[in-house]
Amino acid sequence: MDQTSPTPLFDRVDNPDDLKQIPREQLPALCAELRKVVLDTVSVTGGHLGSGMGVVELTVALHYLFDFKDDRLVWDVGHQCYPHKLLTGRKARFHTLRQKGGLSGFSNKWESPYDVYLMGHAGTAASAALGIAMGDRMQGRKRHSVAVVGDAAMGCGVAFEALNHAGSLEHDRLLVILNDNRWSIAKTVGALSRHLNKLRSGQFYNRAKDTLHNLIQAIPVVGKDLDARLGDTVEMLKNMVAPGHLFEELGFRYFGPIDGHNIDELLDALANVQKLDGVVLLHVMTEKGKGVPGSEERYDRAHAAKPQPRKKPEKVPVEPCVLQPVVPLVKAGRSWTEWFGEGMQLLAEADPRVIAITAAMPDGTGLMEFRDRFPERFVDAGIAEQHAVALASGMATSGMRPICAIYSTFLQRGYDQVFQEVVLQKLPVVFAMDRAGLVGEDGATHNGLYDLAYLRCLPGIVLMAPKDGPELHEMLRLSLALPGPSGIRYARGNAPSQTDLVGWHGRHQPVEVGRMEVLREGPDGAVLAYGHMVQTALEAAALLDRRGVHIEVVNARFCKPLDEQGVLALCDRHDRVVTLEDHAQVGGFGSAVLECIAAHGPVRAHVQVMGVPDDLLEHMSRNQVLEHCGLTAAHVAERFLAAKDAPLVR
Amino acid sequence: MDQTSPTPLFDRVDNPDDLKQIPREQLPALCAELRKVVLDTVSVTGGHLGSGMGVVELTVALHYLFDFKDDRLVWDVGHQCYPHKLLTGRKARFHTLRQKGGLSGFSNKWESPYDVYLMGHAGTAASAALGIAMGDRMQGRKRHSVAVVGDAAMGCGVAFEALNHAGSLEHDRLLVILNDNRWSIAKTVGALSRHLNKLRSGQFYNRAKDTLHNLIQAIPVVGKDLDARLGDTVEMLKNMVAPGHLFEELGFRYFGPIDGHNIDELLDALANVQKLDGVVLLHVMTEKGKGVPGSEERYDRAHAAKPQPRKKPEKVPVEPCVLQPVVPLVKAGRSWTEWFGEGMQLLAEADPRVIAITAAMPDGTGLMEFRDRFPERFVDAGIAEQHAVALASGMATSGMRPICAIYSTFLQRGYDQVFQEVVLQKLPVVFAMDRAGLVGEDGATHNGLYDLAYLRCLPGIVLMAPKDGPELHEMLRLSLALPGPSGIRYARGNAPSQTDLVGWHGRHQPVEVGRMEVLREGPDGAVLAYGHMVQTALEAAALLDRRGVHIEVVNARFCKPLDEQGVLALCDRHDRVVTLEDHAQVGGFGSAVLECIAAHGPVRAHVQVMGVPDDLLEHMSRNQVLEHCGLTAAHVAERFLAAKDAPLVR
Repeated sequence: MDQTSPTPLFDRVDNPDDLKQIPREQLPALCAELRKVVLDTVSVTGGHLGSGMGVVELTVALHYLFDFKDDRLVWDVGHQCYPHKLLTGRKARFHTLRQKGGLSGFSNKWESPYDVYLMGHAGTAASAALGIAMGDRMQGRKRHSVAVVGDAAMGCGVAFEALNHAGSLEHDRLLVILNDNRWSIAKTVGALSRHLNKLRSGQFYNRAKDTLHNLIQAIPVVGKDLDARLGDTVEMLKNMVAPGHLFEELGFRYFGPIDGHNIDELLDALANVQKLDGVVLLHVMTEKGKGVPGSEERYDRAHAAKPQPRKKPEKVPVEPCVLQPVVPLVKAGRSWTEWFGEGMQLLAEADPRVIAITAAMPDGTGLMEFRDRFPERFVDAGIAEQHAVALASGMATSGMRPICAIYSTFLQRGYDQVFQEVVLQKLPVVFAMDRAGLVGEDGATHNGLYDLAYLRCLPGIVLMAPKDGPELHEMLRLSLALPGPSGIRYARGNAPSQTDLVGWHGRHQPVEVGRMEVLREGPDGAVLAYGHMVQTALEAAALLDRRGVHIEVVNARFCKPLDEQGVLALCDRHDRVVTLEDHAQVGGFGSAVLECIAAHGPVRAHVQVMGVPDDLLEHMSRNQVLEHCGLTAAHVAERFLAAKDAPLVR
Repeated sequence: MDQTSPTPLFDRVDNPDDLKQIPREQLPALCAELRKVVLDTVSVTGGHLGSGMGVVELTVALHYLFDFKDDRLVWDVGHQCYPHKLLTGRKARFHTLRQKGGLSGFSNKWESPYDVYLMGHAGTAASAALGIAMGDRMQGRKRHSVAVVGDAAMGCGVAFEALNHAGSLEHDRLLVILNDNRWSIAKTVGALSRHLNKLRSGQFYNRAKDTLHNLIQAIPVVGKDLDARLGDTVEMLKNMVAPGHLFEELGFRYFGPIDGHNIDELLDALANVQKLDGVVLLHVMTEKGKGVPGSEERYDRAHAAKPQPRKKPEKVPVEPCVLQPVVPLVKAGRSWTEWFGEGMQLLAEADPRVIAITAAMPDGTGLMEFRDRFPERFVDAGIAEQHAVALASGMATSGMRPICAIYSTFLQRGYDQVFQEVVLQKLPVVFAMDRAGLVGEDGATHNGLYDLAYLRCLPGIVLMAPKDGPELHEMLRLSLALPGPSGIRYARGNAPSQTDLVGWHGRHQPVEVGRMEVLREGPDGAVLAYGHMVQTALEAAALLDRRGVHIEVVNARFCKPLDEQGVLALCDRHDRVVTLEDHAQVGGFGSAVLECIAAHGPVRAHVQVMGVPDDLLEHMSRNQVLEHCGLTAAHVAERFLAAKDAPLVR
């Protein structure tokens, strides 16, 4: 053993087989080392630190007792899995976390045989682990299937569906570990949270279960008398004094709560439930960010780092659980999220009907100040996008004007509610889709690449995207004036202000439903850009100006209703029109343009669609992934250069 | 009163104000009349009879006590609302149910001020009613918000999300009525169902709650002794002897179960809960199809009528709860659903890895025989599409080959799970999307018009559609051989067999991924048709043949991967190519063709996209709605006739 190493035990562990060689009494020391490695590394690489730090002991105990080469382990919301990665053959690459070509920030089935599943949206681990367990049973395979689920994820509808199903089965073996860190993404909302609070404080439940029978028997005359007079009720009472009865009512055998940072308690409890058949829920209490200085005081965390704002720095909450390397920002300025948050406050000041709804992302969607200023008109529905959307629909029915701030990728969870509850009823609900487009390091699960495709087909919805911060404010105001549903998409990262926009010195044209905005003219072709890609189009035009090529740049503003007359006229003015969007090339804004031309054409221009290629993307920085997808200004400019082999230099 | 009328009381009731004039003791007689009117009318019009018959007394009691001109009433799954329609000013039009221009088969906010909400997919009523309640409170409005939710719908994730949220609120008033008919769409699955069983049988819970305290007090020495020795446990026990504790754990005040066919019991219970603040759940026991002869024996029902099969008529279950007028079928033959059910059995015979998964639709998806023959490989996940898809993903992870049979419109509920759990993990899950396209009488909520738009954007998924029954079998076999996810869409109604296909006498070409099939040639243009619209294209070609116009007809087979070379060649062979699909015109198969041409073109042909127009559709028969949407053979043929003003006669 290297006596000088700060992590002598961890140095001996490359994989779970090594771990099993460590004497049990040394595991607490190993956990301390592991925690140090995670902290030191993630402080440099960036990533979701809190979740992993909270499950160090749980991870060690699981790998100490189970054999996940064969047994199956599904981490709900994969960013719990950093310690798991360190113990399963990936320590040498751990410093590459979330970097291009490096380790993913989530569990990733292509990265290791120990990662059986990929997970970024919360709540589905129990379903997946149950599916694995059922499949194994059908194939005659005997092994353990384990899901580790956070307390907030337990409030997801799909998690309930899975527990409800699992609890009714007789022949399947499933272990659900409730990783209860009591704050999760935001302070956990809902009745389940209160129920867990009761369980947490109710250690006496455990004792009561064991002692009730003894007590009744131990009271000679009384015992009999009680039995006689209460009859069946006694049996019922005995059954009901089990702890965790919500889970027991759903058919699970409940154990806990146990201290998730006490390795002995964990090993004993896991060894116990490991022997059981049927469906078992083990309630483990952990502290999110355990070992991160200052983490105990925080109950809120951002899912992704936010750029430091230029204004009001004193109001920015300290975020010890999430560290992020300084990513070179596309442009200076405030984030789209901040523009949205400010816009919401302006709306709420002007209109008492305005409600902000978030699904467990008050910080991520920029609504913290709104929440503080208008607590009565702020609703956090928890990780429950389906309910958030249906709730908004009910509010709109009652005459309020709800704005649902949900990341583009998470709105997929509420798709059917957007359809039935909002679109079919023509209700004026506004969907503010943050993180639309490529998000960078979080990778495939978090990219918001499909919102135009899945919303554009719904009749009567108005879909728009602003070119800059002020236009986002204007679109928010417009959306409130619409009689029906609408969606506004904007990106992760910083928004240009009007003066930031490269090479545009024109006069702002007020936003009007279904009307595009010509930003600059030019005879050599046109870029019709959607939302935040307008900036890229203007940069491309500036690059081309230097090469003597002068193109028109148009801010599309609306994907639906599309400015059909504007599109047709544009395509008649030019030989070449490029549509540009930070959305899947399949089914997005470009397709809307092609449909318009097919319906009303023919036109003069050859129309090319530029968007995100139809492929699964690895994680990398936002700039890298834009480059990878061919969505930089240089790529746009090249479409207009006759000599393709003359590379552009920016 | 008209002494000769069979419904003298009902004749006096046009709206709830009239109802309130009926003496309470006459309400049972009114209910009997109401039941007779529903039965007699729906026997002629067709529709979902069982749900409405089960809630006659509940509907009467609600309108007797509440004032739903002001109070708000949301029916979960709107087909419970037939008696409601009869009592709210619509009796004169009730015979027009589900017919074009007539009353909708669901609650419909544009039909009556008493229908506050539109609902066809299950589970969202509690969310909507809560949204209304919160919105009302914010606006200082005091009124009741009531949701009537079936027991199977309570197993929906979104219903749990809503209860979880509502139960944590302090200032909102919401009444959720659990309409527990114990069988719902299929036999209710899941642990919740078992919990409800316990509640149903547990009348003594009610007594226990009242008596425990008295009992303990009534035992002089014992009471004290017990208190001393059990300490806090006694208090806990008292709290826990409440009935319905799963709902109480979620923060609801639970009352019930009460007999939903005893009008006095209903009125007393409703009057009681009407006075309460906070969130209340009233558990009402009803019999689905109460009053329909023979309904007690059946626990399964079809959502839509299925055409009588030509084969094995002795195996078709009698369906007393759903009656349907004889709809003229597009073509003779077996339904797509039956072809699928048969295909699934063939697959399961050949491959032990094959699993069938349904979300509460074993009958509607044609899996009843499969369930009987392969009970071990049949899973009904309940009305829980999210879980059904994630479960399939887990099963595929374990090496099984799950096929999820879910209606196109309901798969919207599992969209995010298709994305993360299946597509991102490249798992070989097959989605069999029944009722894809226009479904007819059920109307907008049940049309499956968006599956291509929302699935086509996902990387790596294979999307296909068969032209006839045998091709559906072939595509099922193919899907099992694929390494990743796939989707097969097919329609409501009958599938042609190969010999049924009009005007096609060619040799069948084996299905090959990403390859179209030319069915007939012709110099005057081409129709590239997707799935069951191939039949329509062939009919159009036959019509045109008579006019001396001879077109090529191509069976597209694949939307993704598209046969790009085939498309480009086709569009170079012709001046005019029409793409044809029973899917939204926005973002569907036609858009895929346009994208291909934009990426690889230009081509000679002018390409026109024929699909379902971008509009909300009223309910009408399938043939009427195809006509309404311009998707008949005559409409297709007209695209190829130079003289548009010469109407085609079929």
